[in-house]
Amino acid sequence: MNVHDKSLTAPKVTTGALPASKKVHSAPEGRPHIAVPLREIALSDPDQPFFHAYDTSGPYTDETAEIDVEKGLPRARQAWIEARGGVERYEGRDVKPEDNGNVTGDRLARDFPNKEKPLRGTGDKPLTQMECARAGIITDEMVYIAHRENLGRQQMLERAEAALADGESFGAAIPPFITPEFVRDEVARGRAVIPANINHPELEPMIIGRNFLTKVNANIGNSAVTSSVEEEVEKMVWATRWGADTVMDLSTGRNIHNTREWILRNSPVPIGTVPIYQALEKVGGDPVKLDWEVYKDTLIEQCEQGVDYFTIHAGVRLAYVPMTAKRMTGIVSRGGSIMAKWCLAGHKESFLYERFDEICDIMRQYDVTFSLGDGLRPGSIYDANDEAQFAELETLGELTRVAWDKGCQVMIEGPGHVPMHKIKVNVEKQLEACGEAPFYTLGPLTTDIAPGYDHITSAIGAAMIGWFGTAMLCYVTPKEHLGLPNRDDVKEGVIAYKIAAHAADLAKGHPAAQLRDDALSKSRFEFRWEDQFNLGLDPDTAREYHDETLPKEAHKVAHFCSMCGPKFCSMEITQQVRDYAAKLNAPVGDAREKGMEEMSEKFREMGEKLYVKP
Amino acid sequence: MNVHDKSLTAPKVTTGALPASKKVHSAPEGRPHIAVPLREIALSDPDQPFFHAYDTSGPYTDETAEIDVEKGLPRARQAWIEARGGVERYEGRDVKPEDNGNVTGDRLARDFPNKEKPLRGTGDKPLTQMECARAGIITDEMVYIAHRENLGRQQMLERAEAALADGESFGAAIPPFITPEFVRDEVARGRAVIPANINHPELEPMIIGRNFLTKVNANIGNSAVTSSVEEEVEKMVWATRWGADTVMDLSTGRNIHNTREWILRNSPVPIGTVPIYQALEKVGGDPVKLDWEVYKDTLIEQCEQGVDYFTIHAGVRLAYVPMTAKRMTGIVSRGGSIMAKWCLAGHKESFLYERFDEICDIMRQYDVTFSLGDGLRPGSIYDANDEAQFAELETLGELTRVAWDKGCQVMIEGPGHVPMHKIKVNVEKQLEACGEAPFYTLGPLTTDIAPGYDHITSAIGAAMIGWFGTAMLCYVTPKEHLGLPNRDDVKEGVIAYKIAAHAADLAKGHPAAQLRDDALSKSRFEFRWEDQFNLGLDPDTAREYHDETLPKEAHKVAHFCSMCGPKFCSMEITQQVRDYAAKLNAPVGDAREKGMEEMSEKFREMGEKLYVKP
Repeated sequence: MNVHDKSLTAPKVTTGALPASKKVHSAPEGRPHIAVPLREIALSDPDQPFFHAYDTSGPYTDETAEIDVEKGLPRARQAWIEARGGVERYEGRDVKPEDNGNVTGDRLARDFPNKEKPLRGTGDKPLTQMECARAGIITDEMVYIAHRENLGRQQMLERAEAALADGESFGAAIPPFITPEFVRDEVARGRAVIPANINHPELEPMIIGRNFLTKVNANIGNSAVTSSVEEEVEKMVWATRWGADTVMDLSTGRNIHNTREWILRNSPVPIGTVPIYQALEKVGGDPVKLDWEVYKDTLIEQCEQGVDYFTIHAGVRLAYVPMTAKRMTGIVSRGGSIMAKWCLAGHKESFLYERFDEICDIMRQYDVTFSLGDGLRPGSIYDANDEAQFAELETLGELTRVAWDKGCQVMIEGPGHVPMHKIKVNVEKQLEACGEAPFYTLGPLTTDIAPGYDHITSAIGAAMIGWFGTAMLCYVTPKEHLGLPNRDDVKEGVIAYKIAAHAADLAKGHPAAQLRDDALSKSRFEFRWEDQFNLGLDPDTAREYHDETLPKEAHKVAHFCSMCGPKFCSMEITQQVRDYAAKLNAPVGDAREKGMEEMSEKFREMGEKLYVKP
Repeated sequence: MNVHDKSLTAPKVTTGALPASKKVHSAPEGRPHIAVPLREIALSDPDQPFFHAYDTSGPYTDETAEIDVEKGLPRARQAWIEARGGVERYEGRDVKPEDNGNVTGDRLARDFPNKEKPLRGTGDKPLTQMECARAGIITDEMVYIAHRENLGRQQMLERAEAALADGESFGAAIPPFITPEFVRDEVARGRAVIPANINHPELEPMIIGRNFLTKVNANIGNSAVTSSVEEEVEKMVWATRWGADTVMDLSTGRNIHNTREWILRNSPVPIGTVPIYQALEKVGGDPVKLDWEVYKDTLIEQCEQGVDYFTIHAGVRLAYVPMTAKRMTGIVSRGGSIMAKWCLAGHKESFLYERFDEICDIMRQYDVTFSLGDGLRPGSIYDANDEAQFAELETLGELTRVAWDKGCQVMIEGPGHVPMHKIKVNVEKQLEACGEAPFYTLGPLTTDIAPGYDHITSAIGAAMIGWFGTAMLCYVTPKEHLGLPNRDDVKEGVIAYKIAAHAADLAKGHPAAQLRDDALSKSRFEFRWEDQFNLGLDPDTAREYHDETLPKEAHKVAHFCSMCGPKFCSMEITQQVRDYAAKLNAPVGDAREKGMEEMSEKFREMGEKLYVKP
């Protein structure tokens, strides 16, 4: 869709299953109305005909689903929310010209056509997931999440291979099995959040907390310089296809309201925003003109649309601003810079800090989760872990307690640019200052010297900080510091961060994390090339790389790999070792023994073929 | 060059300087004949008109150098070696048909045309760098290396900013300044190696040790399935252009001898090989047919050609082989598999282990460094840190002491596939078992689930293991497990590993490592886009990404970036914070104060422009 094109056709998005995959649904025992999606990957392994993977991609990868971007996704959560009660539907705020940057005519993107009136809390019942949790109520979202997070755990327990989970969790309390009650307890304590605005019933519930799977966020959003509504909707769908657990819409240009509406109505994952960006647009881009009224109006606008979490930089206090003066790169957070400029202009305390109670009261009515922004995060290795950064963190801890008292869910944003030896203390200080509220970090980048590769400089830091206890990792794309990510950059960023998050889960000792590594490695050992591709995070790229060297279909079942060539294969020799060890009666009495014997068979049958030239 | 093309033209290689860079040479005080190469990057920063970077790329990036691949590189070290004495030139071994896989006629690649007779030690004087070091001799190589490694340290000491180096080195002893005597002492103790065969006088000396800059190795090499001599020579030049400190030629196909000769004569970096690969080719690819004679003949062949280090899998003992039977992926090291098969075939102890003394005597004569191979390294997360892996490591420690007694230099190869929480113990055990001999690891990959992205899964592990004390990181390319890397994959792998090595140096507290991060971040803050690109590891890619969003030349001096657009810029606000802090007389009394004031000026002059649309 081109924003200049009046005869608007619906945004085109990517649909269809991933290779060898199909969408299946699983219901918790006794809760048939709760359908948790899984990606079932078909394998050619007789011992394991399929593998179930956690699936963030929504109906777009469901061959049986009918996708109509004009209608938006099914509103599955609506019944749950209404059944809980304590909500009312009302005439929402009218869309104002400034919501879309005062653009008109051809320049105004069409709004989403099928909008509902918004819901809000009436205040007479527990409304937020945290209020429900504290009241001892296990919400449908909590049941859904427990079932979703348990993927593979049952299998581990049956196999009694929980011994595999020999990680170092640094004080996290990851249970062998997740019950709805455990979810409720973690949310009640504030150790986990379920970002789920009552006006975003399309989302598939997920949880962010140190005792659950490490999550990944992908940022999208247009700017005054570039990109259109259609591109942004597709970026959201594309990011979730590759595994993004949440998406932040950081749009700053025109058509910001309508772009967000299209994204929300079609998003299966929680959507986060930074409301101050839109508020700034409403006052013509001049931070000095910001005030509480325009900010409050923006909060309500976005609450009614269904945004699930807000980044709010309420920790940037006037007194901390001068602490950044000695920095190499000053204040690099956009929200932090806006608030710093506002504070300086009138030499006043931040209105976000002073109005924090009122902000809580608004967000509580819709169960919008706080993501307390680190406006003073370091923008370079030189500035890491400095006075300004940690002063703000203390204030974020103070605000966390205020929000909790108001019944609001809270997570805390973290850096940024941090060398490896300074990463761990960031988690330790955050857990201590913020009462174990979930940590949500951007990278961190472990060096500044590789523009164009910051998905890698930061995947290193992200994997480590995830291991140490960060609950969600905000991705960084190869375009960081250079430009806005396109579709390819979004995929590169998401894959790099799925790697970091999974490496973190392995190291933390997540009971079921290693199942996928084991399945993939077994397929690699057994030359099941297609299974190896399909079990990977990106089957398309793996297959393409393999085919560059060995394009023939025949090679996908070849008992050699291009690294060694047909005359010699270390995998084949390994098989002989196993035959030898078996003769020695070496102990091979586990699940793999059978597979090994089958392999010996295969190798004997195919023996000669090993020496045939391709 | 096409191996089928009789009328052979010389391999074409990439030449020319990197953007805004030129090759300069620096001589240690009082040693004018020692010219250490540096890459001088021109900057537009009045405070810092240029930046000097460590340069592995040899004469190929020197605009003033004349490159003739037919002649090979200048043999600068020859005079040093002859001056030390204790060497003799002799009639080397004749090239045999089996050295090139018995190919003839059109299929035989032409040999390098300008060969010299080989040198060998006479035994009457210290020959290896280790023997010289123990005898108290500071070789020219040591002087060269001290000067090369000191890059930036002088500057740090002058700035008295050594406080910056606040890393955690886990017991490494990194000095603020490197003297030739320190290099000698580290080599004498076996804590560092200088891979430098007396028959490879073309190389620019470098050192591998935990108290020096973390190094990166790039693997190249053809196989029976793919690639030609020309491609391999270009891959070597290409890998060093992007920062590879050493290159391993893992060729396994035909023309293996001639390919290696072209590489060696044109390589400015040490070249490593795995001699058993060629030995296996000589016996038709059947490990069972291997014996000491063919292996010994191969060692001498490669010693005479000038290979600088050999991977030798002498730690794969018969008794350890059955320990791998229970593994998920068995023995994945090609050399390890070859030796395992050989041991099993005759139920015999490894001839590499039993003949280790004789191997030392041969390698000592040419000062070829040992890289004791980890033939039993884990090939999957499941197999990490198992009995077989650590049993072999103990044997590598035993062999290290044997080699040291013979005067040979030694490094130790390490894994592989290791989840984050199991990485550190690998370094601790290696340092303990092998008397602090330099550790040289492949990755490790921190998860198995991302074929096509193993440069990233492994860059995470490489950065961490480098921080913990690994001296050299063997790169992994995106093609790992899928195929042989092409030129693009080689670059991807090298850049990912330069990131990991640099992140490790920062975290270890290398005194000068942060200079480059600081220079780049300062250019980023000051909107010196060209400087930001040119200071990065890959200026071409950074520029290309930037231009996708903001192509106009004008934007390279624009005081905003595409992330925020022209109406708002956090960098500009930062400047106002500094002006404010200056008014408050906040302490800004350091080197950056001047730069800040200049920036304030610039911003005042350009103030209005900040609000102009692009």
